[in-house]
Amino acid sequence: MDVRRHRSAPGSGADAADADPGEAAVESALPAPSPEAGLPALDERQLNILRRVGSEWGRVCGNPDLWRRALPVDPALASYPDPTDVRPTRFGRFVPVQSGVLPTVEATSEAEVPSSLPGRLAVDLRRALLGPPLRSTAIARERMRKLVALPVLSADALSSVAYGPEAMLAILVLGGTAGLSYSVPIAGVIAFLMLAVGVSYRQTIRAYPHGGGSYIVATDNLGRIAGLVAAAGLMTDYILTVAVSVAAGLEAITSAIPSLSPDRVAIGVGVIVVLLAGNLRGVRQAGMLFAAPTYLFIIAMFVLVAVGLIDAGGRGFQATPRPPLTATEAVSALLILRAFASGSTAMTGIEAISNAVPVFKPVEWRNARTTLTWMVGLLIVLFAGTIAMVQLEGIVPNAHETVLSEIAHRSFGSGFMYPVTQAATAAILLLAANTAYNDFPRVLFLLARDFQAPRLFLRMGDRLAFSNGIILLSLAATAIYVAFGGMTGPLIPLYAVGVFLAFTLSQSGMVVHWWRLRDPHWRRSLVFNATGAVLSAAVFITAGITKFTSGAWVSLLAVGLVIVLATSIRRHYSTVARAVALHPHTIELPRQRIAPGVPARAPAAAPDAKEGEDSRQAPSADGETEESPEEIHHLTIVPVASLDLPSMRALAYAASLQQPVLALHVSPTDEEAERFIKYWRTWGDHLPLEDVVSPYRAIVAPMVNYIESLHRQRPDLTLTVILPEIVVRHWWQRILHNRMAPRLRRALRPLPKIVVTSIPFHLPR
Amino acid sequence: MDVRRHRSAPGSGADAADADPGEAAVESALPAPSPEAGLPALDERQLNILRRVGSEWGRVCGNPDLWRRALPVDPALASYPDPTDVRPTRFGRFVPVQSGVLPTVEATSEAEVPSSLPGRLAVDLRRALLGPPLRSTAIARERMRKLVALPVLSADALSSVAYGPEAMLAILVLGGTAGLSYSVPIAGVIAFLMLAVGVSYRQTIRAYPHGGGSYIVATDNLGRIAGLVAAAGLMTDYILTVAVSVAAGLEAITSAIPSLSPDRVAIGVGVIVVLLAGNLRGVRQAGMLFAAPTYLFIIAMFVLVAVGLIDAGGRGFQATPRPPLTATEAVSALLILRAFASGSTAMTGIEAISNAVPVFKPVEWRNARTTLTWMVGLLIVLFAGTIAMVQLEGIVPNAHETVLSEIAHRSFGSGFMYPVTQAATAAILLLAANTAYNDFPRVLFLLARDFQAPRLFLRMGDRLAFSNGIILLSLAATAIYVAFGGMTGPLIPLYAVGVFLAFTLSQSGMVVHWWRLRDPHWRRSLVFNATGAVLSAAVFITAGITKFTSGAWVSLLAVGLVIVLATSIRRHYSTVARAVALHPHTIELPRQRIAPGVPARAPAAAPDAKEGEDSRQAPSADGETEESPEEIHHLTIVPVASLDLPSMRALAYAASLQQPVLALHVSPTDEEAERFIKYWRTWGDHLPLEDVVSPYRAIVAPMVNYIESLHRQRPDLTLTVILPEIVVRHWWQRILHNRMAPRLRRALRPLPKIVVTSIPFHLPR
Repeated sequence: MDVRRHRSAPGSGADAADADPGEAAVESALPAPSPEAGLPALDERQLNILRRVGSEWGRVCGNPDLWRRALPVDPALASYPDPTDVRPTRFGRFVPVQSGVLPTVEATSEAEVPSSLPGRLAVDLRRALLGPPLRSTAIARERMRKLVALPVLSADALSSVAYGPEAMLAILVLGGTAGLSYSVPIAGVIAFLMLAVGVSYRQTIRAYPHGGGSYIVATDNLGRIAGLVAAAGLMTDYILTVAVSVAAGLEAITSAIPSLSPDRVAIGVGVIVVLLAGNLRGVRQAGMLFAAPTYLFIIAMFVLVAVGLIDAGGRGFQATPRPPLTATEAVSALLILRAFASGSTAMTGIEAISNAVPVFKPVEWRNARTTLTWMVGLLIVLFAGTIAMVQLEGIVPNAHETVLSEIAHRSFGSGFMYPVTQAATAAILLLAANTAYNDFPRVLFLLARDFQAPRLFLRMGDRLAFSNGIILLSLAATAIYVAFGGMTGPLIPLYAVGVFLAFTLSQSGMVVHWWRLRDPHWRRSLVFNATGAVLSAAVFITAGITKFTSGAWVSLLAVGLVIVLATSIRRHYSTVARAVALHPHTIELPRQRIAPGVPARAPAAAPDAKEGEDSRQAPSADGETEESPEEIHHLTIVPVASLDLPSMRALAYAASLQQPVLALHVSPTDEEAERFIKYWRTWGDHLPLEDVVSPYRAIVAPMVNYIESLHRQRPDLTLTVILPEIVVRHWWQRILHNRMAPRLRRALRPLPKIVVTSIPFHLPR
Repeated sequence: MDVRRHRSAPGSGADAADADPGEAAVESALPAPSPEAGLPALDERQLNILRRVGSEWGRVCGNPDLWRRALPVDPALASYPDPTDVRPTRFGRFVPVQSGVLPTVEATSEAEVPSSLPGRLAVDLRRALLGPPLRSTAIARERMRKLVALPVLSADALSSVAYGPEAMLAILVLGGTAGLSYSVPIAGVIAFLMLAVGVSYRQTIRAYPHGGGSYIVATDNLGRIAGLVAAAGLMTDYILTVAVSVAAGLEAITSAIPSLSPDRVAIGVGVIVVLLAGNLRGVRQAGMLFAAPTYLFIIAMFVLVAVGLIDAGGRGFQATPRPPLTATEAVSALLILRAFASGSTAMTGIEAISNAVPVFKPVEWRNARTTLTWMVGLLIVLFAGTIAMVQLEGIVPNAHETVLSEIAHRSFGSGFMYPVTQAATAAILLLAANTAYNDFPRVLFLLARDFQAPRLFLRMGDRLAFSNGIILLSLAATAIYVAFGGMTGPLIPLYAVGVFLAFTLSQSGMVVHWWRLRDPHWRRSLVFNATGAVLSAAVFITAGITKFTSGAWVSLLAVGLVIVLATSIRRHYSTVARAVALHPHTIELPRQRIAPGVPARAPAAAPDAKEGEDSRQAPSADGETEESPEEIHHLTIVPVASLDLPSMRALAYAASLQQPVLALHVSPTDEEAERFIKYWRTWGDHLPLEDVVSPYRAIVAPMVNYIESLHRQRPDLTLTVILPEIVVRHWWQRILHNRMAPRLRRALRPLPKIVVTSIPFHLPR
């Protein structure tokens, strides 16, 4: 239960899970995405630490009211001089709200708009393309009726009929007529598989009524690595789903309009861009949008099969003889297994309903099970019907026209029904691609929530979509699609390996689940899930071995890569989590009171350099672990190039902090050093100055090395380096300045306990 | 005299000019580059301002000794705990020095080495390639004897004989035999031109004994724009000198070894890279290195002409009949003018001696004049000899072999002297390219010193070379060379236009100079310079018109571009100079004493928000013009994402500054806001917190807009935004963090009076 512990660590945001156990006995973390997922909930231990750190502050900082009264501004912006800024209209940038415990201000959508003109235009453009931003509270939880859920959730599975049988036949045809004769028995096995996996997923729905994706089920029951493998398998397959669906959809179109064939790569990339834009805009599963093509596809397929059967019945169900085929390969067990593995791509998408149980109307799990049953039934019928038509019509797969298109031509000729069938096929395939756009970012979100993917995949965009995951999917799918020239055939061997890996782990997880739970009916559920697991594993192994050299290795490599990446990301995040954790000091130090405007410890009393080495024994002298203000001992360093206004402002800022100040000047020659010191004395020599002569004319490196030397002299000090920085109006003007501030900032960044303060100086227009 | 005034502005570093007027009556700014050129010398007015600003500080800051005693470190590093850091050996990074007015530390070459391993390796690699760094004091001012100066300074001019006559003949041959018959009269005109321009430059040497480059002479006498035009002409021509010399040098080699011809582009780029590396390393004009090939070339040419003449004398100076030529163009005035313009490229480099008068042994100007006379004499003899040989041997220019190579073949056959001649030609051409590497960065230095080019061209590298100018020249020359396929022919029309533009302006400037000066002999000098100016102008106009369409437009466009660029750069720098100038406030404010550790004004006494609007009437409320500490009123803002160690350190740092603090948190939902406020109270609510609810989930923009609202509420406050920033160990880990600090820093940069402080938090290894 490693992960459960992990989830309760800060940053999991999953504490709602225990509060809402749902109908079923075991409930995992709520997979529903929320904009708060990146923000940690603290447990009691952490709250206690916070309390102890706070009590140390209390002794040092005195009355919080003193600090509150010292504030020179009104943070609630209530008495704000500019009324357009706080106004409950769409043009005000902030509105005051009385929310629960404290009055706060709320940013309106105007507050997202940067002040600069280019930033403003960029926001306008984005809003024009993607629509206005949506509030976090707009995460709709609309429930779906079964008749709406069916088309929405089964587009991926049903559309597989468009390429699954074809992929199988394309392998069998290598064995000539003898090879094709195996199509019916193989199809029978696949149909049985669909049934078994379908029944297996019915059990998952019962156990995970809040959605039981493969990642959650495998993680919960088999551990972190198994979950990661399942997630990796799913993610590679979602990428391939987009590529394969777009390719197959375009093949449906080019079968009808062959002249489009040469431009298929460009058109496909265009389709992916449209999917990207649509999903960034947040195309929710608008019922009708999905229902129409899916039902149209189902009807078209039924009509197709019916017309074909009537036609075949007219000739006494005699199969149309195939043209003589020359076998290019002997019919071997390997060939048959390869055909089986390719054909089983028709099962992809079957897991969709079990992921999405909460979208059903109550009782959710019951409705989901019913819908799953319908879907599997339809899938088997469409799959069997397609294979039957291929047999009866004596169709031979070829590179120029899809099998479905050939069947449609035989049944409908080129009349009205043919283009309708092709259009419905293309539409359902694009919807299938869209399904991947819903699921891929969600898996990435779950990985990121569990610290196994970059936190940026937690972020919900303007439109409540996981923009980063959507963009990553589009990039990956485009790369794959273009690399394979937009052809379905070469993509098929890569496909399905990942899905069946995820199926296997998910079903195995369910077996463990039932074994642990032992509720009523656990034996029956366990048997169903075990059957599903064994069959999925068989397909996975078959596909992995037979298609390894022709492409499955790419998918397996990708899965491996995801696991390595996710593991090192997780390691990094736990390093960070340990490093940033608060740990109240146990050593008692003499306390001095600090408050704004109240006299505090005198820096002049700090030990000077001669006695400085003792201070090394002070606690946390070398580390960056200061948790309360009296642990910080200041030295302010101001690099000064010349005595102009920006430098003078930096010196004034440094002096106004009332901490010890050291000005620093680097001179290329002794003469220049003397000259500068003369100027410094003309000014009045108000602050200590050190002139570093750099006879080799470097500036940044000697400065940084000198500051590092000071740090080593007194490692307990916090050195604040104050850099005047000229801010230019146009990017090209940067080349006209030596940009010392960013260079010093970059060079100082790796050094410990060195704070860098930039004092901007804006050039007039 | 606009520029003279400009030079005395801060940053000119040219104040030494008036102290050392030299022998001649008029002296311009010393063109000698120095590493201090980028550092301003202040005039009396500026020193007075500085004194007044300082006196304001004095009233506020009290005794400077208080600040000096408050210093917790020893800036001289004398009692430094780590002896390897301060030690007068090559491994110590700083050595203490007692220089003039104040004890300082001096950085050793070790102090230039960054602490990070990659930085260290980069420095090691650079030092291995370019040699150890050189001290500023190593700027050698070795003087040259005339016999050494002659080869060093005349390589560019004499090498022009290798392509000048050929360029002329390549045009004349278009007119067939009739065309070629004009070669002798045209050559005569060019030889006269050489004489006239040479005499003209003798006058420049007398007037500018400290070096009278075209930029200086034109600027001094004709104004800034004329100087800029001359500089632009020279710079475009130096770029072309590199490209043409490398191309011609390779043609000398491929004439001897034709099999190398196909690789000429690659070889040429390699040669430019060698020139780049050598010049970055700082190849000084090592006497022998330059003397040998130049004298070898002169001797080879003399032998060549002598053998040819003896040979021709043997047959009674009868010209060898040329093969019959078909004219592709009628012999027109235009053709002849084009040939003249192309042939005058033989004069390029004639200005070198007048630029470099100070390198001669005393009496510099006298020795320089003598050397100039020798050089012009040699140039005319070699040029005339070449043309004579072409006439006598009946040589026809062709694309496969250079004219010089053909002459050498006729005179020497393929024996020992032929390859020597070709090698000497190639060597002197590469030396000519190297001359451009000396002059181009020097012109850029002068432009940069006068604020007409980016300041980065002022910088002397490790090896005392103007690295940035050298790199720019190499890039530009490589681009031109590659674009023209490494062929001399197509480059010639671009060439010489710029040089003759600079000649014209320089000689015209001299005319003005003599007219103003009217010293003894001014009339004669004026007449010589006027003749030079008129003839140069004639060549410039001829070249500009006749070669305009075939390439001169490129050079003229480049000149125009340089002028536009330099003018807008100058405008930018004067905006900056005005903006950064100190201007002591005249309004008297009530003073409060500030000193480290000494109780100062109480920020709690600052007007609170309700009364805050009055403070808008305070002087310099909106501007960034604070010149002394008591003008700065603080508000410290700490954006807090979660209550972890980095945030706690930022809060502690903020509180330890003893100025008013406001913590800021952005929540995506009301629930998260409530949760965070709960944690804040658990901690103890020690500092004021404002929670901004951002229902559209953006973080940076609402934060920045909120801070801007605070600024507009109290424009007199200096807002210090304190950002905790996680510093990762490896670049790829950056993607795992939201990098809020750099994003906020970038978004806050354009806003006025907002100081950004980064508190780094280093992850453990």
